[in-house]
Amino acid sequence: YLYRWYYSKICQWGLGLSIAVLLLLAFVERPSSLSLSSDPRYRSPPWEPPCGLTESFELLCLVIFTLDLIVKSYLIGWEEFRKSKWLIGYTVVLSVSIIDWVLSISMVCDEKLRVRRLLRPFFLLQNSSLMKKTLKCIKRTLPEIASVILLLALHLCLFTMIGMLLFAKTEDPKNNGEWKAYFRNLPKSLTSLLVLLTTANNPDVMIPAYKLNRGYAIFFVVFSVIGTYCLMNLLTAIIYNQFRGYLLMSVQTSIIRRRLGIRAAFQVLSCHEAQEAAEEHVRVDSVLQVMSRVEMKSYYKTAVTTEAQQYADVGYMSLDQFRKIFDELDKDRIKEHPPLPQYNSPVLQRLQTIFGHYYFTIAGNALALANVICICTILVLNSEMSTAERDNVVLEIINLCFILYYLFEMCVKIFALGWRGYISYRNNIFDGFLTILLLALQITIFVTYRLPYNWNTPSHHVVSLWEMVCLVNMLIVFRFLRIIPDIKLMALVASTLMDLVKNLRAFAGILVVVYYVFAVLGIWLFEGAIKPPPETSVISNTSMANITSNFSVECGTYEQLEYWPNNFDDFAASIILLYNVMIVNNWQVFIEVYSRFTTEWAKVYFVCWWLTSSVMWVNLFVALILENFTYKWDRSHSCSVTDVERIRYQTS
Amino acid sequence: YLYRWYYSKICQWGLGLSIAVLLLLAFVERPSSLSLSSDPRYRSPPWEPPCGLTESFELLCLVIFTLDLIVKSYLIGWEEFRKSKWLIGYTVVLSVSIIDWVLSISMVCDEKLRVRRLLRPFFLLQNSSLMKKTLKCIKRTLPEIASVILLLALHLCLFTMIGMLLFAKTEDPKNNGEWKAYFRNLPKSLTSLLVLLTTANNPDVMIPAYKLNRGYAIFFVVFSVIGTYCLMNLLTAIIYNQFRGYLLMSVQTSIIRRRLGIRAAFQVLSCHEAQEAAEEHVRVDSVLQVMSRVEMKSYYKTAVTTEAQQYADVGYMSLDQFRKIFDELDKDRIKEHPPLPQYNSPVLQRLQTIFGHYYFTIAGNALALANVICICTILVLNSEMSTAERDNVVLEIINLCFILYYLFEMCVKIFALGWRGYISYRNNIFDGFLTILLLALQITIFVTYRLPYNWNTPSHHVVSLWEMVCLVNMLIVFRFLRIIPDIKLMALVASTLMDLVKNLRAFAGILVVVYYVFAVLGIWLFEGAIKPPPETSVISNTSMANITSNFSVECGTYEQLEYWPNNFDDFAASIILLYNVMIVNNWQVFIEVYSRFTTEWAKVYFVCWWLTSSVMWVNLFVALILENFTYKWDRSHSCSVTDVERIRYQTS
Repeated sequence: YLYRWYYSKICQWGLGLSIAVLLLLAFVERPSSLSLSSDPRYRSPPWEPPCGLTESFELLCLVIFTLDLIVKSYLIGWEEFRKSKWLIGYTVVLSVSIIDWVLSISMVCDEKLRVRRLLRPFFLLQNSSLMKKTLKCIKRTLPEIASVILLLALHLCLFTMIGMLLFAKTEDPKNNGEWKAYFRNLPKSLTSLLVLLTTANNPDVMIPAYKLNRGYAIFFVVFSVIGTYCLMNLLTAIIYNQFRGYLLMSVQTSIIRRRLGIRAAFQVLSCHEAQEAAEEHVRVDSVLQVMSRVEMKSYYKTAVTTEAQQYADVGYMSLDQFRKIFDELDKDRIKEHPPLPQYNSPVLQRLQTIFGHYYFTIAGNALALANVICICTILVLNSEMSTAERDNVVLEIINLCFILYYLFEMCVKIFALGWRGYISYRNNIFDGFLTILLLALQITIFVTYRLPYNWNTPSHHVVSLWEMVCLVNMLIVFRFLRIIPDIKLMALVASTLMDLVKNLRAFAGILVVVYYVFAVLGIWLFEGAIKPPPETSVISNTSMANITSNFSVECGTYEQLEYWPNNFDDFAASIILLYNVMIVNNWQVFIEVYSRFTTEWAKVYFVCWWLTSSVMWVNLFVALILENFTYKWDRSHSCSVTDVERIRYQTS
Repeated sequence: YLYRWYYSKICQWGLGLSIAVLLLLAFVERPSSLSLSSDPRYRSPPWEPPCGLTESFELLCLVIFTLDLIVKSYLIGWEEFRKSKWLIGYTVVLSVSIIDWVLSISMVCDEKLRVRRLLRPFFLLQNSSLMKKTLKCIKRTLPEIASVILLLALHLCLFTMIGMLLFAKTEDPKNNGEWKAYFRNLPKSLTSLLVLLTTANNPDVMIPAYKLNRGYAIFFVVFSVIGTYCLMNLLTAIIYNQFRGYLLMSVQTSIIRRRLGIRAAFQVLSCHEAQEAAEEHVRVDSVLQVMSRVEMKSYYKTAVTTEAQQYADVGYMSLDQFRKIFDELDKDRIKEHPPLPQYNSPVLQRLQTIFGHYYFTIAGNALALANVICICTILVLNSEMSTAERDNVVLEIINLCFILYYLFEMCVKIFALGWRGYISYRNNIFDGFLTILLLALQITIFVTYRLPYNWNTPSHHVVSLWEMVCLVNMLIVFRFLRIIPDIKLMALVASTLMDLVKNLRAFAGILVVVYYVFAVLGIWLFEGAIKPPPETSVISNTSMANITSNFSVECGTYEQLEYWPNNFDDFAASIILLYNVMIVNNWQVFIEVYSRFTTEWAKVYFVCWWLTSSVMWVNLFVALILENFTYKWDRSHSCSVTDVERIRYQTS
């Protein structure tokens, strides 16, 4: 009973919710992210939660986890508990968190180092079996990745030495540009070439040398081609190779598990009745009885039940027959749309054929396109005007016309397909929802702004007119997305993307864990490290003013590029900074500024993050996309899963 | 006979050579690339070849091609000729080239537009069947790529509209940063987001908005995640999926062809003798006779011959037996090293075991590492000194010691393995060659610089002392690469890379074609478009001086970044520019400057190049690496090619 209750939906949801709350606390805790801007020059002093508020939430979550741990260990027993490394880790992490919590309460929330923040993502990992599996898979790939990274390191060192020999300081100060900027000493040369490996400083790094002699370009081109194109892509290949069977394997194991389950169910059901025959049978009515109590999707339930009922006159089922009725589960659900409503009047019937016709959909799409083009034209015409100068009346009237047409289309479709038929298409739900939303917004606009009696008091509204119009336009553009399923090729690509999102949960979870750990570490290490210059730069906040200001900064630095909002002063800002480093473009700026304001060792942090995020995770992502697409392709070309399964089985 | 002669090695080499010469002419022709620097500020007036020099080379090549065309069409006959599109294209291109050549001669080399330069790469394409096949494969992939690119375009347009709505001009001039810099009008917004798709302006584009409100970052993050990570990688997946069977298919077809050839050879050989029996046989001696006249690698030849000789006592062979003797070709050549030389003296034998031991190799590697570390240390210590200040004596003496040790190692190895045994390892050849080169260089240095009698005249040498030392050091570092095969994991990765290079020829050819066409087009369109400011910037050529100079330029532009050497003024410079755009980092700078100096339509050229190079070709390259690696992996894990072939055959 406890088992059933523990694995019930509510309980698992509760657990997930408490994990989410615990993780989200990072945004609210000191240093809190609840300011509008993360720029230290404009930032208002953030709201500091009173001591004890976040802590009480935290305690609640920890208590829930403790309960979870107790129930889990009770359910699996002491013997199993000792064997499972995850559960032991869970216990350790929980106790450390509680001790840390007590300490921080006793110091009235004044401590600097909160170890438990670093440990929080562990709860997320621990709770998902899929993530644990993925982690194991990644661990298996590590040795091969290490070999490529070793080769990459060798490549880097080799070229650094050659580079330092080539671009040594010469007599003529005019020819020292390359040496001065990029190859001054060993750490600098290494960093330059490491950044070049990610292509983030590509043309710049070669310019001072290339200016003098064309031949120097060859050095950089060879370095990039070997490093970036060959070795980096080899890394992708290795990771992909490791993940090649990943999806198929998980499908396979789930099939095997189901077979095992069906076999066990058969055994149990046949045990229920007396061993009346040598051959094992199950009674159909007991199967039906069980089916009616089992929780599963109603569609599959009815399918299995109808399949089982055809044996009802015999009264018994053999193992093969029992298995066969569950084959229904393999079949994809073919969506059945409710029948069209029948109208008696011939006029209505004629109208129904017209509106149900394919061309009518096309006309709808064409009008949506026309609407988008209208908005686009007006946008282009008005692009130089500020929001207040714009005359929105024309746009609003056009939009109103289109929205009325959308409403008409919707009504007519409901008429043609019937209400149930209409909502059985996911497309139509999307359409209808947006149409109603648009209508409501447009009416609100007219009521609040265009009616004569409150014409002269437009300023006290919370949301300004322009923002409302803007929202309407965006929704219209968004609604235009409905054309995607109507174009075949795009539908295929879009459905692959949709599938990808489903299979991505485990990876997204690991990404969240990695981001969380690095962000918390970054806050520890670099909080408040960068201090903006007191006054001058506040005045010269536009890029043009920056040049003429007396406070001149070198081009391409953190200060000149105004990267102030990218810092480690709070959690949200550090997430965005880490994202920017993951994208790798211009990450040398962050390396440079943090090693200037703190120590040279800050580079290690950034290189670690680059390795985990950009090298590891992006490659994993690519591998997953490749896997997903080829799997889908194979499936759509060779029918069933079991076929592919069999072939792969022979391959291995 | 003509057929044999035409497909002989010399003839094909001659054809290849003339294609290479024709392609290389682009470097010499006006605008010639024979200047040291491509920077318009420092560039000396390039050497202009006299009219008629390059033209005569060109005519020679064209005549060779005409001969080739005539021979080829004679060989395959008129009927086949009409069917082959490639040959017809060949004829057309040749005639256009010749007409263009005549025109340009009649205008005394003064014409602007040389159409034939654009057509030259066609000869390269036409001559390689592998490239034609790859091209066909790419053509097959195009529709699916188009669908993704369409989706990408939709994504781009959608986000552009949302972005323009979000970042419209507002009343407060302080909040207009984003609008001013990136979303001023439709083309500008489109370019901004297109560049963001390649991540080339990643943190910059979001800074002005992100500074005001954290929430705006979400817009850019969502755009990048969908566009860059999902859609772009989907493109890779699609291309990879198309190329999945590529390698295997080519292996398969070559196997099938060989079987066909063997069967045909059997038929021919059995026809030679009278039909004496109902069962077909071939006489072993005739097989041996043919084998002795056939051109093939001597290793395979002896293998097949010895295999055939075992049937010599029977005198006849059936078809199966005939086939079996050619199975030898499938087996990889196992390299046999010559036996160790035998020495009589026990001391010599003892020495031989010592020097032939594995640990001796390790000691050699360790010393090479020590040498590299020495050089590195001295480099780091001297990094702030200019070349003349450096005291090279210590380094030279250290190097001399190491080189003498290398020489000793080499001699000892020759002694232990014998001369033939020594050169049978490729590793040793690499080692020995570099050692001798190093020795020669070091001796030269000592003779010219360190001997007392020419001590005081060091300046008149062509190559300075420092450059010589530099070369020695580089060679030592290069020699250190010999450790790669000794580390197992690295050996695997390196061998994959080596294999890749073999399979890459077709792709490299297509890359050359694409580069050539775009470079020639670029020269047509943009030659001399960018003019450097007359004097000021020549003075302020270091980056520090640039800030304080009166001629202040905006940060991040072509002028400030000193990208002058990247231009379309000659062929070599345009190749490097195109390479830089292919790498995509900072390509927005090139787009910006060329659309500023010429017209807005310059963007189209750059976007086209980006699509072909970075999107298409890089993805093809990734697909090829993936294909190669997984093929290699499969092969090393499931033994023979035919096995994998069978499995794939079942899959399809």
